[in-house]
Amino acid sequence: MNETPLRMGMVGGGQGAFIGAVHRLAARLDGKVELVCGAFSRDAENTRATAAELGLDPARAYADFNEMMRAEAALPEGERMEFVAIVTPNHVHFPVAKAALEAGFHVLSDKPATLNYAEAVALRDILKTRPELSYGLTHTYLGHPMVHEMKAIVASGGIGPVRKVFAEYIQGWLAEPVEGKQADWRVDPARSGAAGAIGDIGTHAHNLAEYVTGQTMTHVAADLTAFVPGRRLDDDGSALFRMSGGAKGVLSASQICVGKENTISLRVYGETGGLEWYQEEPNTVIRTYLDRPTEMLRAGMGYLHEDTQAMFRTPPGHPEGYIEAFANVYLEFAEAVRSGKGVSAGIDSALRGMAFIDAMVDSSNNDAAWREISI
Amino acid sequence: MNETPLRMGMVGGGQGAFIGAVHRLAARLDGKVELVCGAFSRDAENTRATAAELGLDPARAYADFNEMMRAEAALPEGERMEFVAIVTPNHVHFPVAKAALEAGFHVLSDKPATLNYAEAVALRDILKTRPELSYGLTHTYLGHPMVHEMKAIVASGGIGPVRKVFAEYIQGWLAEPVEGKQADWRVDPARSGAAGAIGDIGTHAHNLAEYVTGQTMTHVAADLTAFVPGRRLDDDGSALFRMSGGAKGVLSASQICVGKENTISLRVYGETGGLEWYQEEPNTVIRTYLDRPTEMLRAGMGYLHEDTQAMFRTPPGHPEGYIEAFANVYLEFAEAVRSGKGVSAGIDSALRGMAFIDAMVDSSNNDAAWREISI
Amino acid sequence: MNETPLRMGMVGGGQGAFIGAVHRLAARLDGKVELVCGAFSRDAENTRATAAELGLDPARAYADFNEMMRAEAALPEGERMEFVAIVTPNHVHFPVAKAALEAGFHVLSDKPATLNYAEAVALRDILKTRPELSYGLTHTYLGHPMVHEMKAIVASGGIGPVRKVFAEYIQGWLAEPVEGKQADWRVDPARSGAAGAIGDIGTHAHNLAEYVTGQTMTHVAADLTAFVPGRRLDDDGSALFRMSGGAKGVLSASQICVGKENTISLRVYGETGGLEWYQEEPNTVIRTYLDRPTEMLRAGMGYLHEDTQAMFRTPPGHPEGYIEAFANVYLEFAEAVRSGKGVSAGIDSALRGMAFIDAMVDSSNNDAAWREISI
Amino acid sequence: MNETPLRMGMVGGGQGAFIGAVHRLAARLDGKVELVCGAFSRDAENTRATAAELGLDPARAYADFNEMMRAEAALPEGERMEFVAIVTPNHVHFPVAKAALEAGFHVLSDKPATLNYAEAVALRDILKTRPELSYGLTHTYLGHPMVHEMKAIVASGGIGPVRKVFAEYIQGWLAEPVEGKQADWRVDPARSGAAGAIGDIGTHAHNLAEYVTGQTMTHVAADLTAFVPGRRLDDDGSALFRMSGGAKGVLSASQICVGKENTISLRVYGETGGLEWYQEEPNTVIRTYLDRPTEMLRAGMGYLHEDTQAMFRTPPGHPEGYIEAFANVYLEFAEAVRSGKGVSAGIDSALRGMAFIDAMVDSSNNDAAWREISI
Repeated sequence: MNETPLRMGMVGGGQGAFIGAVHRLAARLDGKVELVCGAFSRDAENTRATAAELGLDPARAYADFNEMMRAEAALPEGERMEFVAIVTPNHVHFPVAKAALEAGFHVLSDKPATLNYAEAVALRDILKTRPELSYGLTHTYLGHPMVHEMKAIVASGGIGPVRKVFAEYIQGWLAEPVEGKQADWRVDPARSGAAGAIGDIGTHAHNLAEYVTGQTMTHVAADLTAFVPGRRLDDDGSALFRMSGGAKGVLSASQICVGKENTISLRVYGETGGLEWYQEEPNTVIRTYLDRPTEMLRAGMGYLHEDTQAMFRTPPGHPEGYIEAFANVYLEFAEAVRSGKGVSAGIDSALRGMAFIDAMVDSSNNDAAWREISI
Repeated sequence: MNETPLRMGMVGGGQGAFIGAVHRLAARLDGKVELVCGAFSRDAENTRATAAELGLDPARAYADFNEMMRAEAALPEGERMEFVAIVTPNHVHFPVAKAALEAGFHVLSDKPATLNYAEAVALRDILKTRPELSYGLTHTYLGHPMVHEMKAIVASGGIGPVRKVFAEYIQGWLAEPVEGKQADWRVDPARSGAAGAIGDIGTHAHNLAEYVTGQTMTHVAADLTAFVPGRRLDDDGSALFRMSGGAKGVLSASQICVGKENTISLRVYGETGGLEWYQEEPNTVIRTYLDRPTEMLRAGMGYLHEDTQAMFRTPPGHPEGYIEAFANVYLEFAEAVRSGKGVSAGIDSALRGMAFIDAMVDSSNNDAAWREISI
Repeated sequence: MNETPLRMGMVGGGQGAFIGAVHRLAARLDGKVELVCGAFSRDAENTRATAAELGLDPARAYADFNEMMRAEAALPEGERMEFVAIVTPNHVHFPVAKAALEAGFHVLSDKPATLNYAEAVALRDILKTRPELSYGLTHTYLGHPMVHEMKAIVASGGIGPVRKVFAEYIQGWLAEPVEGKQADWRVDPARSGAAGAIGDIGTHAHNLAEYVTGQTMTHVAADLTAFVPGRRLDDDGSALFRMSGGAKGVLSASQICVGKENTISLRVYGETGGLEWYQEEPNTVIRTYLDRPTEMLRAGMGYLHEDTQAMFRTPPGHPEGYIEAFANVYLEFAEAVRSGKGVSAGIDSALRGMAFIDAMVDSSNNDAAWREISI
Repeated sequence: MNETPLRMGMVGGGQGAFIGAVHRLAARLDGKVELVCGAFSRDAENTRATAAELGLDPARAYADFNEMMRAEAALPEGERMEFVAIVTPNHVHFPVAKAALEAGFHVLSDKPATLNYAEAVALRDILKTRPELSYGLTHTYLGHPMVHEMKAIVASGGIGPVRKVFAEYIQGWLAEPVEGKQADWRVDPARSGAAGAIGDIGTHAHNLAEYVTGQTMTHVAADLTAFVPGRRLDDDGSALFRMSGGAKGVLSASQICVGKENTISLRVYGETGGLEWYQEEPNTVIRTYLDRPTEMLRAGMGYLHEDTQAMFRTPPGHPEGYIEAFANVYLEFAEAVRSGKGVSAGIDSALRGMAFIDAMVDSSNNDAAWREISI
């Protein structure tokens, strides 16, 4: 009950960065996490200003993450940060996570976990030697209670064995050549990794499909494209896929679908029912039956699974959204750190995500030949 | 103006059959087509009863289609049927069409055009020798004015060169083993052809994508499945595809998506805009832009292309649906017969549809290898 | 089964008129009604051209409705028209209906039934002397199967005693001063009657609310407005109302809601459930419960009442719309003529509609004082 | 930038209360407000436990609000609370607000402001003597950026002079007799005031209509009902209304619409356009035009007014909801305290809300006679 908030250090998230600010909103919402220090930017002035804006002790605004690890490790146990939130471009995820884990700090990282599969393996190997440390990926959409409800319905046999899955994440913001901070590193292989749209958002679709179905994606046959002239990474891709329990499906991730904002959907059909969820209206799950009217399952209602209900902060009809889902990821991670329990997206998801990216790219480079995803 | 209705003979469509009755509703709606004779069923009693119910001259209720061709051809010119509507199971499309064309009658046929590609070629060859005859396929969804509007927008450059296409047709009615007339022949290779869901509804998605984009589908990489135990034809399939103008896309056709009724959607994204249409609410097209609010284009409105507006029968806000679309197919065919103009889906669509089926099946049988669609 | 179509004469509906053409589509769709004659316009040339376009015998294109009654009555029984469809502006409804009934013809009339309540009483009195004649009003929206389903659910206690009703019909087409045939007579008291929007579309909302709830509207407190400068009849109005079974509600009818097409909705909440229907997507009814997920009842599905299912022409997922609903009104009327059964909207609805208009106008003229609707 | 958070004391909001917890989430989200003390419950143990759960100094968990005012006023300026958030049942709003203002604390209060109009006047009179104090009402829905956008569009003439307004707030949770903390005081006149649903949620609809249109509601003609047997306050009500700028409208508030969660909608039609907003999908505004396609204005997009854009925390497609709107109310209030600027809903809204309640009740008690709302 009367718990001290978990103390967080943040790497990345200086002024001008989008996702760092969202992390802080999510961490702050429930009062269970407290930001105590950060290495917010390679630009020292930005770091200083960010810390000032956030009301942090200036002494704990660090020039770089290595310094942060050293300095924080030297603080008294009840004062030093307990975990590191990594909100940098992709290529910095691994060095920070490695440094943090080796310094004994828990890690909550943006996805994709690392720049490549080998780095994810390295993280796993470190974690094997430090079983007391928690590692989590901010697969934000798993934080939506209605996504949890879908998983619970599938797990309890509510739609029968899953046959067909449609997982889609489409946006339009890269339909034109884009400059600027947000887009910049995302289209640079050195900082983003082997894939563009597939790594940035395709991994969400992959993760969501596995989470809800309880099956792993075993094979993909993919066709990736860089539609915008001069772009070095895919800005669009689709794949046929097969799953461990016999389900088949289609995954699409695209950033050139003009006018689409952040259109994520998951549709899952089993032998006796179906479930559909659309992220832009996250408080509804559509449930279909063989011979009964389609139902609209709604956030907060008493007919949902109890653990789903526990994830809401407001009564039915009061829409919760992205920040609340993100905060649920933080709550789950804080609970994991305190209790030693696992998280919905941990190191296994990290490995699976990186293997997914590799398989997608490799398949696309080989005429959409089937590629196995294995970790 | 004061035209005599076009005289139609029908093959198939006896009592108990679904699609024949819909053809008659569509043909009748605008008063431009008149049913004058039929060979409605292999069951003579059914044919007789159907004719009686329809108020036909009993003498023109024929025992089989060959007799119908012979007898009608012998009637005076101003009395005999002018075209044959073919509403039988797939395997009968070809023999009837062939007989009709050879007897000098125009043909309006259900799709897929024939049981296999060779038969479609044979039809084309006959048509080459009879250029005065019209041949049309009832690709019903092309009859929706808002589909026509999408085509017009794309053709006029309204969304820029098309990049990405999502074409989907999913249903749930074959999620369980089904007996009964409707399902029966659809799951029998001898009567349905090489494909199940792909032939029955995948061809609609294929046709719709080509029609709206103005590009042809050149390659597919497909994964087809018969999910229901014992089923001999696919009841589900998805494919990656590529188009002649550089667009890429995903096509899904499934009859095992529990609870889905007749869920057809087409989403097309170009360099500067996008268009989305959902058949179950056919009076709306969603139009997206790079930097303007998304618009809802609505049936009947004055801002639509003039030839789109001409396709509506009622003012805005009075929903038109499936039967009206079907009637538009009949209107276009009647106009083609009278004027010699072509139709939206003619013999070329017939060939393309059959080639699509073959490519899908062949790709799926070869590990989703890319297959070319050529006619 | 093998019935001869019912023979129809039409008054009104010449070239350029909207609703006459829709009547003919609706009458023609199912092949149960045949147009045999008409007095389409006061303009003889228009009447002639309309008849020619429709392929009618020129001899049965009459100069006026009185001539039509006389001439048709003189034809042999198996040939002469059996009923008159009245599709004129409001002020002509009564004289035509009166003439038709007195000449022994059944009448199917556009609504509102007459120009004023007294005329409706006169019609009722004539009908009392001719019990063999059918009289129907084309309250088109009652022809929607899903409206019938709502009525059936309420009647069977499916939502408990009805408490609250929202009935709304809003359009935008009269937001600006409008000239032209459609709008012209609608804003002229001499031709439209005491009310504008309330008579034209408010009567639909009134009728729909009574039909579905099975209660009559007993009292209204109304506020009517003519927003467009110079307009002589209301183009907007709202009312509080009370019903015979204890339900209360709100009715709105407006033609100045910019951008609204033909937005009719009915929402009904009882003690244990609720039902919602939106005409622009007429194939869905939303059903709410005290403690179960909200359901989407869909056209054509097997879980609907059997007599609802019988009203569809196509399987689920094939949207039916306005013309199909209108055709259902014609089918019901044809059945009524053949069998002597009543119709959903007959002379009682005519009287109730006229009394509703009077009560609305009178209430609005008296500071929204409650007015009783009685017939 | 580097501002110290505003220090908040809370009255009400002990464990088991819904709205207090939501206030704390909203206050905490942006880090601009810090809870420092509270009198959470009349139950001392509850207050103690709530404080402990929240990590408050036990010494600042007060037995009652009077003690809180005294004790906090005695603290050093940089330490004592700066404002009081009032989250109690309605009848306690006034005494707490009065005590707080008299002790020199700013006040942010739940609505309705007081138990009756006289109390609101008394608050206004106190505020006149203390112009340095801010007073705000948590009219949460004004915190939605898209509501702000509607106001901005109307204010800039985007839809022309407003003619017609539909304001609706319907729920179903009181459709049955309900016991329990939430419902209990809401149906008790001594604690809720003269109205039930009208005071609880009708005031939101009233406030929203005035805020967006920029007109005040001048007259109402209302019909209130207590549908549930034995209930002493209205659980349903509808009213015709008129506004200061010539607009007319309908307002409905009901808590017996079975299955409705928290269904708030505002629809506003002017001479040249319209705007529609639905709280359960708060990130979209539907904008209609005389002769252009209807648009979907979406949260976060660059085409919105700049001050609307400034209200979002996340990019387009990341849904924000109720808590974010509530947090915007807190942000605005904090800014008002710091800068002396006003708030969207201050003492004038308090007075107008109480006058609205009185007018509604009085009208309903007098046969829906028009009653003026004046302050």
